[in-house]
Amino acid sequence: MVDPNTLDTWQAIEDIRRLAPVVHNITNFVVMNNTANALLALGASPVMAHAEEEMAEMVGIASALVINLGTLSGPWIKAMFLAAEQATARGIPIVLDPVGAGATSYRTGTARELMTACRPAIIRGNGSEIMAVCGDQARTRGVDSTQASDAALAAAEAIHATWGSVVCISGATDFVVGGRELYRIRNGHPMMTRVTGLGCTASALCGAFAAVGPDDCALAAARAMVTMGVAGELAAAGAEGPGTLQLRFLDALYRLGADDLARLARTGA
Amino acid sequence: MVDPNTLDTWQAIEDIRRLAPVVHNITNFVVMNNTANALLALGASPVMAHAEEEMAEMVGIASALVINLGTLSGPWIKAMFLAAEQATARGIPIVLDPVGAGATSYRTGTARELMTACRPAIIRGNGSEIMAVCGDQARTRGVDSTQASDAALAAAEAIHATWGSVVCISGATDFVVGGRELYRIRNGHPMMTRVTGLGCTASALCGAFAAVGPDDCALAAARAMVTMGVAGELAAAGAEGPGTLQLRFLDALYRLGADDLARLARTGA
Amino acid sequence: MVDPNTLDTWQAIEDIRRLAPVVHNITNFVVMNNTANALLALGASPVMAHAEEEMAEMVGIASALVINLGTLSGPWIKAMFLAAEQATARGIPIVLDPVGAGATSYRTGTARELMTACRPAIIRGNGSEIMAVCGDQARTRGVDSTQASDAALAAAEAIHATWGSVVCISGATDFVVGGRELYRIRNGHPMMTRVTGLGCTASALCGAFAAVGPDDCALAAARAMVTMGVAGELAAAGAEGPGTLQLRFLDALYRLGADDLARLARTGA
Repeated sequence: MVDPNTLDTWQAIEDIRRLAPVVHNITNFVVMNNTANALLALGASPVMAHAEEEMAEMVGIASALVINLGTLSGPWIKAMFLAAEQATARGIPIVLDPVGAGATSYRTGTARELMTACRPAIIRGNGSEIMAVCGDQARTRGVDSTQASDAALAAAEAIHATWGSVVCISGATDFVVGGRELYRIRNGHPMMTRVTGLGCTASALCGAFAAVGPDDCALAAARAMVTMGVAGELAAAGAEGPGTLQLRFLDALYRLGADDLARLARTGA
Repeated sequence: MVDPNTLDTWQAIEDIRRLAPVVHNITNFVVMNNTANALLALGASPVMAHAEEEMAEMVGIASALVINLGTLSGPWIKAMFLAAEQATARGIPIVLDPVGAGATSYRTGTARELMTACRPAIIRGNGSEIMAVCGDQARTRGVDSTQASDAALAAAEAIHATWGSVVCISGATDFVVGGRELYRIRNGHPMMTRVTGLGCTASALCGAFAAVGPDDCALAAARAMVTMGVAGELAAAGAEGPGTLQLRFLDALYRLGADDLARLARTGA
Repeated sequence: MVDPNTLDTWQAIEDIRRLAPVVHNITNFVVMNNTANALLALGASPVMAHAEEEMAEMVGIASALVINLGTLSGPWIKAMFLAAEQATARGIPIVLDPVGAGATSYRTGTARELMTACRPAIIRGNGSEIMAVCGDQARTRGVDSTQASDAALAAAEAIHATWGSVVCISGATDFVVGGRELYRIRNGHPMMTRVTGLGCTASALCGAFAAVGPDDCALAAARAMVTMGVAGELAAAGAEGPGTLQLRFLDALYRLGADDLARLARTGA
């Protein structure tokens, strides 16, 4: 029986710290450093690799694969498909972050092809990205959402029905669709939107939590969002701006304890 | 009538915060994260994309385009030309940062071809980069200037006469050539030279200011340099080194107020 | 006569600060920003470039070349070989960081081909990377070592015997093999392993020290490791986590003084 307030996030973090699962990221140039640091701070073992020549072998030692479309290009798309194929063959969870879907048809199209080819365990995006990959006519403004997270709930349900993926919509309230219940997470801080790539970090943490809990990827995604939000709140307390917030966020991930989660997690209806 | 001390920089910052203009960056791997964070901290909406396949569509939602040659390669050069073509067609301002021009003929040549093809609204570089793209025999030492900014004034005038671009030379004193007057900005702090990519950040902020003030790109560039310099001074006050400076700089951009500009801006003859 | 406790690291740092040697890095996407900032904070002049078209010219103005396999791909490997060829022709030291050797045959193979083609002055890696490039069957777990540094001493000796390279094995104790003596450096802090790319930074600093002391690259590598470790200890004192540590590390490199080294350096048997 999962604790309805914290979703047993602490126990999962202890697993991550103990097992240090290798999380393979094919991600964008903007956030690679932050993503790697966030995974390290939480206790996972990040690897970043994108050459076709080593894709199968590198995915072969990973416990989760995170594919992020942030700075897409032809050679990287090839690597994404190869990696996804290998992850599927090995049965490890795939997380897809369709950054900027809805801004260009290249991104929307690549996201949808990947969804069809590899049926990601988890798809995490903001409201307009989720609506765009569903096939709605949502327009993403660059990489920023034009939609509140709850506006994408129907799209998330439709994606789950068609592809079977858990869908995590991030926003002021985060929603996770496709699990035993609809998870709502109300943690986080508005200043987090002024730091680049925290959405990408959320997807990477989904990978870490799915690595240690692959049997319930909805719960894994919800735990990742609780962790993001609680660490963000701890980091924002007293931060003088997004620069301070960014580094204190890594400190918070590193120091996060059971009591922080019990005290701060805001989940449920 | 523009205030001669602050160049009405505060009003422009309010516009950026209110409109959150999308600034499309084709920039280098070293600074992507900082550049995105600086634009976010100031209030703009950064997007980084470089695939030919999505260039026209992504530039289509941008209010300014920033092209930075920092880690140049063939495929990126193609994307730069495609993006510049689309930006020209849409009439949005183009900022060119010829990083390392004068260090290799590849960089100098690419910068000059881009200047001829797209006639950037603003070209921002250090002294030796500006001299190099003008055709002088200046040698850039890697990406560091071998010339004081005032040594490049004649080159800046020549570039403006030939290509029509506003030219911003950064250094201990920043100069902006090609506007209603020659702008001189004496803000900033020496420790800023020990943080990588603050020149690239300056170019990105030129893009943000040009996005909200495309009718006077010289003024936009001058405001960007005032903002960089004042935020840098605020960040350097009490900083223990370039690490602290870098994050406090983002905080300072985020918190910057009218009073900071009124108190600290040092412009004019 | 070199001081056995500090290895005259302070004098070498003074040389770096006075000469600001250009260090050319062909490195990975994850760490480019940190690496450039660490070199700048120490006083060197970093340049990052990877296009074949400008390789010879850019290496032509450098005093050391650092090749890092962290996010390898075909075009970058070509640039690495071209750069190494030019560095060899000019007689400047080459540092090779075989990131992830042992994780995939692509990385192990590329490292060994580079070693044979350019006989690096210094090879720096963790225990399992050094064992892997030696031809041992060590398996690297993504980019994390599965071996303690002393387990790789025989491999380091074998590499030195075959390729003539100085070999630096980093870990709780760092070892430098191939100099007038076996250097052991016992500085550093465990929290440094939770910051991405500090190993890559160590390789870049090896480049800076080799640039000002190319006649004894073992001593240069040992001084780089002393500098890393002492700066890391200064940064970790009072750090609340890996976020704070990362930026305080840059501050520490910038502020590092003769007294810090005299007080904290732990070298020797």
